[in-house]
Formats: sequence, structure tokens, C-alpha cells
Amino acid sequence: MPLENTSSDRVAADSTRFVLIGTSHAGNVGATARAMKVMGFSDLVLVNPRFSDVLSQQDALDMACGATDILNSARIVGSLAEALDGVSLACATAMTPRDFGPPTRAPREYFAELARTPHRVAFVFGCERYGMSNDDVYRCHTCLSIPAAPGYGSLNLAQAVQVLAYEWRQALGGFDVVPRTLDARLASGGAVQGMLGHFERALVHLGFLNPAAPKKLMPRLNQLFNRAQPTEEEIHILRGIANSILETRREPR
Amino acid sequence: MPLENTSSDRVAADSTRFVLIGTSHAGNVGATARAMKVMGFSDLVLVNPRFSDVLSQQDALDMACGATDILNSARIVGSLAEALDGVSLACATAMTPRDFGPPTRAPREYFAELARTPHRVAFVFGCERYGMSNDDVYRCHTCLSIPAAPGYGSLNLAQAVQVLAYEWRQALGGFDVVPRTLDARLASGGAVQGMLGHFERALVHLGFLNPAAPKKLMPRLNQLFNRAQPTEEEIHILRGIANSILETRREPR
Repeated sequence: MPLENTSSDRVAADSTRFVLIGTSHAGNVGATARAMKVMGFSDLVLVNPRFSDVLSQQDALDMACGATDILNSARIVGSLAEALDGVSLACATAMTPRDFGPPTRAPREYFAELARTPHRVAFVFGCERYGMSNDDVYRCHTCLSIPAAPGYGSLNLAQAVQVLAYEWRQALGGFDVVPRTLDARLASGGAVQGMLGHFERALVHLGFLNPAAPKKLMPRLNQLFNRAQPTEEEIHILRGIANSILETRREPR
Repeated sequence: MPLENTSSDRVAADSTRFVLIGTSHAGNVGATARAMKVMGFSDLVLVNPRFSDVLSQQDALDMACGATDILNSARIVGSLAEALDGVSLACATAMTPRDFGPPTRAPREYFAELARTPHRVAFVFGCERYGMSNDDVYRCHTCLSIPAAPGYGSLNLAQAVQVLAYEWRQALGGFDVVPRTLDARLASGGAVQGMLGHFERALVHLGFLNPAAPKKLMPRLNQLFNRAQPTEEEIHILRGIANSILETRREPR
């Protein structure tokens, strides 16, 4: 369903902020921009990136693909506090355990709750190697953990951004699925039965089906074609095949 | 919940295959391996990659991070038909419309159905630039479309792999969320009321609260602390603050 028709459209796309702290790899910044844009988000803030020119580095532009507008409007600030200006609820992403801090939640169940609140939300991501500092985690309201394989729970930074952007967009009502194939006109039950009758005559003609001892051949084909849910065009093709069979003459053995 | 306790554990991790057709960038192959492993999948098949040594290229190893075992056990084959050997249901991922083909479905709703079937599933991804060929799409049973922003619907290849691997793992029952912070012992309602009474005395002591005209100060603080859901340790801290206040002497104005 389109976003504007959902009950959660008060959470406009732009009210969600993505914050990257101390990011090392320009490619990850670019991939983050793309991951955000593809899910309809645009507010990117970098806190003390390793390279101050990261937003214009070639790796960032390459990975951003068509999302360089996100890079162009991104801001660089000196602290998480600045990055969270205007945000009412900050979600940390943290891989290593802390002695205390905000509660750990799985994105899907938590976002279902969060999408019903009026919060201005930020998702905060630490640097590739060390994640978030304790002090930065303590500033946040929730600690998100993407459920992952035990013993190997480390998503790439940009892929974590992609999963959370996707989940959050889904929670906000999602985008339409764009059909990649035309809707087929499904054949009616009568059309399927007509085709089966046509095929039955063809199979008798072939000598494959003995009308005196038909066994379960036609019911089995009926089940197959019920599962296949043929289109009108496919029924036409199948009847064409049956016709071709009926026009043959069996070779004497 | 752990995978082995779910109703869908008959769909073992290894029964899901990821197939990359004609991939150009070694980094995407490595990132795919990592995206699979982090969601507990391991069966990777490449169809005619651009570089036959892609599995050992440095970019692949770098992006695979700790998932080089997935690269080591990956197979390279010459056609999608070979890649789908042993698979009973293949999901295409396609970005461009086709004149006909398998029905387009959103991953979440489709996977909820698919996880209840006994299918051996493959997810098939085309090359970075052109996606899947028509002929390859026609071999598949479903066309998956990750719902994305209108006008900018192009996920990076490895990020599409990550989203689908995540969604499919969620549909199969998911992994545990690993708590990143210790569970706090929440204070009882009585402990909160005790703290509020303690604070009320401190506020009277400060002259901030006039017992003769208390207005709604204490009910407002009560609401604030109800929302905050304080822990036992936090109640202890707050009472310590109240004690410190009660030990002061107001300066005469």
C-alpha cells in the first residue's frame, strides 16, 4: 500500500535520521546512502568520520550509485549529541555486551511498536571495527540487535543499515510491490475441464490411455493442472498440442 | 527462539541455496557470503561469473570477512539449470518488467507461505548491471521484489541478498536476539512510591514544593517515573539524591 494511505504516515520519511559514528570506509558511507534512499529515507549525519572528505571520496560515490543526493545533503558533526539534535528516540546498534544500558530489542517486534508512536527516530551505527562506545550507547533509548547466526553475528555496516531501513520502512507501511510480470488471466475451471477432455481424446488416440482401463490417469492430470493454475493462453497452447496429436496417425508396430 | 525448537526446522539451513548469475564484482560475491553466513546459510553457487577465479580474489576475501568458508565451499557452474539441481522451488529477483513469467511477490508475505512447505528453495540473483535474463526468469517459480522507494528501487546486489537472507531466516523461525545489555531489576511500584515520598520531603525542604499549595507537582513526577520504569539501582540513586538534598540548609535570601 502507498505510504500516504497508511495510518503511520505522520512519521514522514524525512523524520528518520541515520547516524554513522567514526566510519572508516568511504564505500560504507556510499552504500549507506543507497540503502537509505532505496527505502525512502534521506537524512544522513556523520559523526567524526575517519576522513573529513569522505562524502566526496570516489568509493563513496561509486557505492552510492544514484543516491549521491543523500551524500550531498549529509552533515558532518563532532559528537553524537549534535547528531541527535531534533531526535526524540535514538536506537543504538551494538554488537558487544555492556554492563548496563538501554534494553536490547529485535527490530521487527520493536518497530511495530515504535511506528505507532510520534517519535522522531534516529538509528545510530558505530564504526566498522569497534562498534559504538559505551558513552554513545548510554545516550540511546534502545539497543537494536539483528537476529543472526550464533557465533557469526557480524553484519557489514552498510548491510545492517539496509536491513534496518527495510524493516523500518515495512513498519511504517511499506512501499508497493512493483509487478515485474504482467498479471495473467487465469483459465476458468470449465476451460481447464475442456482442455482435459481434449487431452483425454488425444491420449486415447495415442494409445497411451485405454478407455476400457483408464486407471487414475485423468484424475492425476486433473490434479496436476489444478496445481498449475493455467492461464487462458496456456489452455490455448495445451489444446493446440492435443489437436496436433489428434492429427497424427499411429505407426503400425 | 532457537531454530531447533521451531516448527519449520525441517527446512534445514543448508537446504536453501543462493545462486549468483554472471556476477561482475568480486566484492559482491564476498559480501554475499557474509550476508548468507550471518543468517545461517551456506550453499552458494555461481553461474558463469565474470572472473573464473572470483572466489579467491582479494576483494571477495575482504568482503567475506569471517565467511571465507562459504567461498571455499561455493561451486561454479555453467548454467542456471545446473545451479538448480536438487532445488524444488526457485525464486527469481528481477528489477525490470517482463511480458510474462512467474508471479511477483513481496518477500515477507510470500516467505510466510513458503516456510510452511517442504520445498528446497533457491534464491537467484542476476548480474549487477542487467539483472536476470528472461530465459532464467522463466525457469523460476516466483519473482521476488523487495518493496522499495518509487523511482529508486535498485538495491545493491549484496544488500538484496542480505535482505532476503534475513527475511527468509525470520520466516524459518529466526535466531535468538542476543542481549547486549544485562537485564535490569525493575523497581516495584512500592519502591517507586517510597522514592517519590522521599523526594517530596526533599522538595518541601528545598522550598520548591509548598505543601499548602502542592498543585500537580507530585502527580506529574509520578507520571514521569512511571514512564521511566526505574530499576532498583536507579531508585537507590534517586533516594541518595533526596538524602543529599535533605542534608542541606537553605541559604537565607
